[in-house]
Amino acid sequence: MAEIIKPKSISGFPEWLPSEKILEEGMLGIIRETFEQFGFVPLETSAVERNEVLTSKGGNEKEIYTLARLAGTPEDDAKDYSLHFDLTVPLARYVAQHYGHLIFPFRRYQIQKVWRGERPQDGRFREFYQCDIDIIGEEKLSLLADAEVPSIIYQVFRKLEIGDFLIRINNRKLLSGFLLFYQVPVEVHNDVLRAIDKIEKIGREKVEKELWDELKLSSELIADLLDLISLTGSKEEILQTLESKDYGEGFALGVSELKEVVGNLENLGVPSDYYRIDMSVARGLDYYTGTVYETILKDHRGIGSICSGGRFDNLAGNFTKKKLPGVGISIGWTRLFSRLLAAGIVQPGKATRSHILITTMDRSYLQEYLKLATRLRELGLNVELYSESKAFKKQMQYASRKGFRYVLIAGDQEFRDEKVKIKNMESGEESGWNISELESKVSQMLSSQG
Amino acid sequence: MAEIIKPKSISGFPEWLPSEKILEEGMLGIIRETFEQFGFVPLETSAVERNEVLTSKGGNEKEIYTLARLAGTPEDDAKDYSLHFDLTVPLARYVAQHYGHLIFPFRRYQIQKVWRGERPQDGRFREFYQCDIDIIGEEKLSLLADAEVPSIIYQVFRKLEIGDFLIRINNRKLLSGFLLFYQVPVEVHNDVLRAIDKIEKIGREKVEKELWDELKLSSELIADLLDLISLTGSKEEILQTLESKDYGEGFALGVSELKEVVGNLENLGVPSDYYRIDMSVARGLDYYTGTVYETILKDHRGIGSICSGGRFDNLAGNFTKKKLPGVGISIGWTRLFSRLLAAGIVQPGKATRSHILITTMDRSYLQEYLKLATRLRELGLNVELYSESKAFKKQMQYASRKGFRYVLIAGDQEFRDEKVKIKNMESGEESGWNISELESKVSQMLSSQG
Repeated sequence: MAEIIKPKSISGFPEWLPSEKILEEGMLGIIRETFEQFGFVPLETSAVERNEVLTSKGGNEKEIYTLARLAGTPEDDAKDYSLHFDLTVPLARYVAQHYGHLIFPFRRYQIQKVWRGERPQDGRFREFYQCDIDIIGEEKLSLLADAEVPSIIYQVFRKLEIGDFLIRINNRKLLSGFLLFYQVPVEVHNDVLRAIDKIEKIGREKVEKELWDELKLSSELIADLLDLISLTGSKEEILQTLESKDYGEGFALGVSELKEVVGNLENLGVPSDYYRIDMSVARGLDYYTGTVYETILKDHRGIGSICSGGRFDNLAGNFTKKKLPGVGISIGWTRLFSRLLAAGIVQPGKATRSHILITTMDRSYLQEYLKLATRLRELGLNVELYSESKAFKKQMQYASRKGFRYVLIAGDQEFRDEKVKIKNMESGEESGWNISELESKVSQMLSSQG
Repeated sequence: MAEIIKPKSISGFPEWLPSEKILEEGMLGIIRETFEQFGFVPLETSAVERNEVLTSKGGNEKEIYTLARLAGTPEDDAKDYSLHFDLTVPLARYVAQHYGHLIFPFRRYQIQKVWRGERPQDGRFREFYQCDIDIIGEEKLSLLADAEVPSIIYQVFRKLEIGDFLIRINNRKLLSGFLLFYQVPVEVHNDVLRAIDKIEKIGREKVEKELWDELKLSSELIADLLDLISLTGSKEEILQTLESKDYGEGFALGVSELKEVVGNLENLGVPSDYYRIDMSVARGLDYYTGTVYETILKDHRGIGSICSGGRFDNLAGNFTKKKLPGVGISIGWTRLFSRLLAAGIVQPGKATRSHILITTMDRSYLQEYLKLATRLRELGLNVELYSESKAFKKQMQYASRKGFRYVLIAGDQEFRDEKVKIKNMESGEESGWNISELESKVSQMLSSQG
């Protein structure tokens, strides 16, 4: 006999138990449905991209997993491909490649695994799901798209029921306009944005110090900037304050875009306590050029942003000369899900997706059990048939461990009476069903389950 | 400006256009639902396994894609992991690893991509989906599980509506019993099975020649074997013939198992013209030990088996000392789907999953369009709002290209009358809806769509 290889997990590559996976599937299903409610279509790109594609936007090569054959072949091309590390670069490549076959504005959602060779730490995964949506325009894309995004975020997290959340909205034009007004060179803008992005984590004073010591900004600029990003109040108050400032054209354009986006949210069904204008949201990436979003769980701010994104001027400049502006968001799903599990905000429940287990206490009636299973499936139930020849008690233990809500019990007496017993495992209640009335009983059962 | 990288496909890594992906998602959804109807739960394993796990069953190392960092780091462990090439080895590892947390019989389905570094040829992919189900027992697993499998295959392909199909069923014990009876050494059994597996492709004579020339079997054995695998008739006739043969104990056990499995199919709702006992089904793998299955499309036999599998004595012998027998099947999905597309058996349709497009002909009513979109979504519709400021004609072209069934049209006149126009794009019919009666109109629309 071959030696036993002890099976073990690979650090950073998470796997779930069945009850956890069932929970995850349910939640991903809600995300998918919500994306579809807003007109997004599913897209899937291959797990690998050419290396030149992945590194075109300066992906971190140390974190990119490239391929190789386990046993080499001379004509091996595997090394030219690598696993994608996000879904945005693949989208850009896909849209440029299939441009002529796509209809714009192109609204796609993409829920796929991505891979990053990071040092695995708490909550840092090497393999994880991202749930992305993007709306890609041709040459132009209306700000209406920017307004739709928070309404999608709102619906997703409302339906996921993981607690109170807040969508924080800003516009990058406003911050870069401000910096230009103060004649801060463009090359430094990202350093400034990165610094202020940390304000919630490290506090105002440390950001102030960084801007002064390292970026050598003037004290007047720093004071004005920190006042700006610390603005609080209702959206009307903040907008009024912003409109009163004279920080030049870029800033004013940012304010007017922000006003337009926020002004549409009420009619898109987003209640006002679910979003806020927040000048401190800068997003570390130089990728975004207009509206930016972050989303936090109010009672679990430590998790950080659970859904972020923004507007970009040009999606696929590396792959096509067409100008393709867009707006989108990404949910770093696996990280979020693992945190929700760890914090007990969501709990794995049943280890089955069946409505009912048919127990098989008397194997001489096997054909009857099979018929019942078939019949109940035809009536729309998910039915598991207990296949093993085990004591009835064992079968009931199985039902209870897996979390079946209903169990069908029938033996000699029941079949002679053309009846079955249905036990509700939650209430303990048992009821007798005539086999002839299965149809009406099942529709009752299905409608009572919602 | 950076140089443009021309985006192109990677050979063997298929991608679909939105309308094709929508079709694929719909079909995968049917498969998933059917698996769940039979009590299977979703499982997902990481895309990579340790190399020692993947090679434990003798996977072809030239076809295994292992990982490496694009830019190396000293402490790199990526080379110890590789992308899985099927879902069975990962299942075996998973079940052994999480044994204590699983409830047996463990019924899982797994729909995931797998990767094989094959030479890409027509219909051979390097990245493709497999749809697998397996029922794993602890120590024992009843033959009832073997009978359930064809009923699942039947339901899946009936619902997919891709034409008439036939499930071919055999039992490996029967063939190996026969060979033992003729004192063919066990080491040669697989070569014999592989030879007869080709009978449909290369014909009886060539198989006869191979058995004679290469495997040096006796002419009596060859004649008996070929008669056996060419048996035709109803299942009753075939079983009767088989029961009349005296080829020893193993053979007789195979016959009795086959009889038991087939005997349950009627009550599991499988019509008799959808399955057949077929002694030529041997399955090339030495993995199977009892019942084996293949499924063919009657009008497209060239596609080969679209769903195959069987019974195995011990799933995870390389990873645990526990004996875990099982039975399962696998659909090589991407290959099947691409063949179905190429043959025109399935056709991509719409490029949207929305019920309705809200056109925005008069931007001064933007807030009203937003309210309508929000309202219709609350009523359960998938709604796309046309976000761009384009001519009405362009908007209607967009609706028609994407395949929207309904378009909502409203301008100054309509809003003053508190009405909207709904155009059915298929019939061309237009009807006026009062905004106050949206609710009842939408439920009518939803119920008429089935």
